[in-house]
Amino acid sequence: MTAAHAPVAARKPLPLLVTMGDPAGIGPEIIARAWLEHPEALMGAVVVGDAAVMRRALSLVVGDDVSRPLAVGATLADAAQAAALPRCIALWQAIAPMTPPAFGRVDAQAGRAAAQCVVAAAQAALRGEARAIVTAPLNKEALAAAGYDHPGHTELLQSLAAAHQGVPVAQLPVRMMLANDELRTVLVSIHLSLRDALQAVTVEAVLQTLRITHESLSRMLGRAPRIAVAGLNPHAGEGGLFGREEIEVIAPAISLAQQQGIDAFGPLAPDTVFMRARATSAQAGGIDAVIAMYHDQGLIPVKYLGVEQGVNVTLGLPLVRTSPDHGTAFDIAGTGRADPRSLLQAVRMARALSAAHAADAIAS
Amino acid sequence: MTAAHAPVAARKPLPLLVTMGDPAGIGPEIIARAWLEHPEALMGAVVVGDAAVMRRALSLVVGDDVSRPLAVGATLADAAQAAALPRCIALWQAIAPMTPPAFGRVDAQAGRAAAQCVVAAAQAALRGEARAIVTAPLNKEALAAAGYDHPGHTELLQSLAAAHQGVPVAQLPVRMMLANDELRTVLVSIHLSLRDALQAVTVEAVLQTLRITHESLSRMLGRAPRIAVAGLNPHAGEGGLFGREEIEVIAPAISLAQQQGIDAFGPLAPDTVFMRARATSAQAGGIDAVIAMYHDQGLIPVKYLGVEQGVNVTLGLPLVRTSPDHGTAFDIAGTGRADPRSLLQAVRMARALSAAHAADAIAS
Repeated sequence: MTAAHAPVAARKPLPLLVTMGDPAGIGPEIIARAWLEHPEALMGAVVVGDAAVMRRALSLVVGDDVSRPLAVGATLADAAQAAALPRCIALWQAIAPMTPPAFGRVDAQAGRAAAQCVVAAAQAALRGEARAIVTAPLNKEALAAAGYDHPGHTELLQSLAAAHQGVPVAQLPVRMMLANDELRTVLVSIHLSLRDALQAVTVEAVLQTLRITHESLSRMLGRAPRIAVAGLNPHAGEGGLFGREEIEVIAPAISLAQQQGIDAFGPLAPDTVFMRARATSAQAGGIDAVIAMYHDQGLIPVKYLGVEQGVNVTLGLPLVRTSPDHGTAFDIAGTGRADPRSLLQAVRMARALSAAHAADAIAS
Repeated sequence: MTAAHAPVAARKPLPLLVTMGDPAGIGPEIIARAWLEHPEALMGAVVVGDAAVMRRALSLVVGDDVSRPLAVGATLADAAQAAALPRCIALWQAIAPMTPPAFGRVDAQAGRAAAQCVVAAAQAALRGEARAIVTAPLNKEALAAAGYDHPGHTELLQSLAAAHQGVPVAQLPVRMMLANDELRTVLVSIHLSLRDALQAVTVEAVLQTLRITHESLSRMLGRAPRIAVAGLNPHAGEGGLFGREEIEVIAPAISLAQQQGIDAFGPLAPDTVFMRARATSAQAGGIDAVIAMYHDQGLIPVKYLGVEQGVNVTLGLPLVRTSPDHGTAFDIAGTGRADPRSLLQAVRMARALSAAHAADAIAS
């Protein structure tokens, strides 16, 4: 009997990893609440975090209900086994046990623990031991206080993946995609001042964004996506009257992408392209994604209907990574009032994105 | 008997003027359709335009129905009298009679006629002969072909008002406000490249925007508005990490405004401030308006739910002016398919904004 014919039952499906996020923020409690309210969505998932932090979060959400036990594994393999047990929240204690920090305050120890969980989860996924990772929110200040100079998950994951592949970070371009039920937008740049973001709108960067979007969405949708490209200036420059980037940079990048078989069009007026994409997203031949030239151009429309609907997806990585579309919400952390819907959406999208990979793995 | 005791019936309410817009675009037909579908909304209003253009628009919308006559006056006074007749669309032939241009094409004659209607309407309002003006869309290229160097209505009206008052344009600062049922946003700058818009974010410009917004909305709402101020950079600069305009320009402008008794706060992360304003707009103590640092920052969220809901209001002028939140739509002009809802919203808002003025005029 060859490996290709091994019984499927003998192979365990790879676990989906959920990192706890900054323990002073709402990450642990939205994970606990998501598990409580939608156990089916989190079936077979493993939290990467700290047991004391997750116990505190559980008690916030379920009180003393002992029928919701935490099953702690010192290794991912142990935790993944526990994840198969009903009603059980499986935790991989991937970091040194810690004392839960005060809620709502920037804490270097909390920032370090949160980052270490991301590193552990990402490395497991890069080694092929996890199907996807879903990351609860980090606090950038706590991350900086802990000595990490990455502004957020995206950059941290990019550098981990580049190190794993033994290539410079510049050779592993990634892009942030924000998605909800009616709009997907992929950003040419993210954590830059608007002044620097203008400089980052180059033919190469726009073309690379189109390529990454085309490849990722082709996998995700099972067909070539139709991609609209926003302009940079009001009215997409009004024929050069309000800026020339559309003529000199964006249109040439779209032409090059079209020559490579990518179904891209534009540049379109930024103030109406998102509305048009939203209106046509459910139609055949509608717009599958909009390329935004800078952070807020893309994030304002995706967040406008409410962050509880939004999911952040990192495109271009050699692993599947999604996250909720909100921060640590220090103002309400510890109150038990945080809304788990965006996390649940992130989990569902991570499953959908990794389904093809998992199917391949089982069949192989 | 003094003037203050003159019988109210002896005084005619001032007419509301609706300019026809570019006759090659959808302006005339949305006016005709609005009149047909909501005659009550347009009661007492006068179209400023050309009879042949409006007859063509009427026939597009009502066919040969002679029960919807056009009553043409050569003066505003004549047209205003006709506006009191039931089922009648009153037109002020404020320009030389013209041959209607082809639909959907840039035409210098059409651009000139459209601009002349705006000039006539604005001057009537500035002389106190009209309560407000609602402007159907112009085509910027046609305007330019006709020799007007104003990029749009806002700048044209500003220069007319400044000339009327005998002051330089710079002494009559105006701002564009976009509003729908759930969000009002006022823009620091409009028709500039994004690069130039960055330069236009100065303490004086932000403070002036706050002052104009405070004064206009105080009149509109009958109380001081609560005004949120967006940042310029992602995450409002994240404490200086992604740009320093929040620290060096926007926060100081907000402080100065607060010292002048203006209820302003911020700067807030641009990607969530509009969502927050939307969510709280109907609550006591909610956000009444958001100051946007550049054109697309404010227009993307207002337009996201659909342009048929949006209204454009020019703040700071010595007259009330609103317009629909869309362009000439050359692609569908002449088909009779254009949607009049945004125009109707603009008419309703113009009435609301001018109600206080009209009440004053009648009582005096």
